Amino acid sequence: MTDDAHCGEERRPTVEGLQRRLADFAAARSWQPYHTPKNLATALSVEASELVEIFQWLTPEESAGVMRDEAAAHRVRDEVADVLAYLLQFCEVLGVDALAALSEKIDRNELRFPVE
Amino acid sequence: MTDDAHCGEERRPTVEGLQRRLADFAAARSWQPYHTPKNLATALSVEASELVEIFQWLTPEESAGVMRDEAAAHRVRDEVADVLAYLLQFCEVLGVDALAALSEKIDRNELRFPVE
Amino acid sequence: MTDDAHCGEERRPTVEGLQRRLADFAAARSWQPYHTPKNLATALSVEASELVEIFQWLTPEESAGVMRDEAAAHRVRDEVADVLAYLLQFCEVLGVDALAALSEKIDRNELRFPVE
Amino acid sequence: MTDDAHCGEERRPTVEGLQRRLADFAAARSWQPYHTPKNLATALSVEASELVEIFQWLTPEESAGVMRDEAAAHRVRDEVADVLAYLLQFCEVLGVDALAALSEKIDRNELRFPVE
Repeated sequence: MTDDAHCGEERRPTVEGLQRRLADFAAARSWQPYHTPKNLATALSVEASELVEIFQWLTPEESAGVMRDEAAAHRVRDEVADVLAYLLQFCEVLGVDALAALSEKIDRNELRFPVE
Repeated sequence: MTDDAHCGEERRPTVEGLQRRLADFAAARSWQPYHTPKNLATALSVEASELVEIFQWLTPEESAGVMRDEAAAHRVRDEVADVLAYLLQFCEVLGVDALAALSEKIDRNELRFPVE
Repeated sequence: MTDDAHCGEERRPTVEGLQRRLADFAAARSWQPYHTPKNLATALSVEASELVEIFQWLTPEESAGVMRDEAAAHRVRDEVADVLAYLLQFCEVLGVDALAALSEKIDRNELRFPVE
Repeated sequence: MTDDAHCGEERRPTVEGLQRRLADFAAARSWQPYHTPKNLATALSVEASELVEIFQWLTPEESAGVMRDEAAAHRVRDEVADVLAYLLQFCEVLGVDALAALSEKIDRNELRFPVE
């Protein structure tokens, strides 16, 4: 039993592993010239809007039950995947560590919004 | 030496750990009523646009060098953190596994866009 | 010859006339409950992203020639129509005069960005 | 009394007049190189998101009352102006007639969504 197996990295995809698969995927198709930071940020925002589109005419209550409809649930997971894909590709080309950036942001927000 | 230490979870933030911190953060401030899936998807798209705003008047070449300017680099990391924060909070309230969704999407795309 | 004919309002659609047609269109289909300011602003941003999507992988030069392709040109006009439709419906429900708002904004910008 | 005065064009800004002012404004500041269709569509979507941001945590009911708060009302009119400004500049550089495009779209939608 290897350390990796012990840590369950074979069973669960990781951010690093996904980022690598996305970079290999783009390289194998020669898509890198299109993957400027500007284009990837734009594609990220377009995909985020496609996620919003699912909810745009729903009431807050209806939006909470969206996963009960299998077609809507599939669409939600598909758009989440697209948003994360472009976020990780953006981070890859600019050398940004998304998890570290978020961790530091939460640290700052804990100081900025203290609990009473 | 604990299993957790062995797996390096103390040294590197994980998606699961960040998702937990964000949920605790919102709960401690009683923000959950605002965190409908509709509102979180909308907030995600607003943050994605703030990331785009950094690049909107740059040429593709200028966009590739954005991290050389420390102020712009900080802003990029900050917006990446915000996008990821809302994506993870959205996934939390709907029970979506973002990493699994992306892994499955890459599997589908490998079939959909075969390499010649 | 009527005043309206004299002013050419029969030949050219006007913002006021389009705003009226859109309001009548929504009322005839009982869509008003969906047309909260929040939903209309969200729909506007979703349509704006669909316009962006046409350009997302194009170079600046390619984007300048987009109307030479008839299918792309039709898509551009269609998304422009959707963006304007939601902007006018948003303004209708909140009583905002879009043309006056823009005129005043240009006045302010002429002071804010003086020409050397 | 001139024809223009008769038609009220001196009292009310028109789309054509605003489009002209915006083009002159950009030309006087040598901003045209930045105003590619791609950049203007992107700026439009960024401004649309700034409009959405005003509403992102409001309930549908709260969103309907947004103009009662003078600061929020000013912000709404300001973002409406920005969205319309980029829409008209986009239309200017591509030669799109926004009012005609919307009029034709409403014609099509009347056939597509017949009233029972």
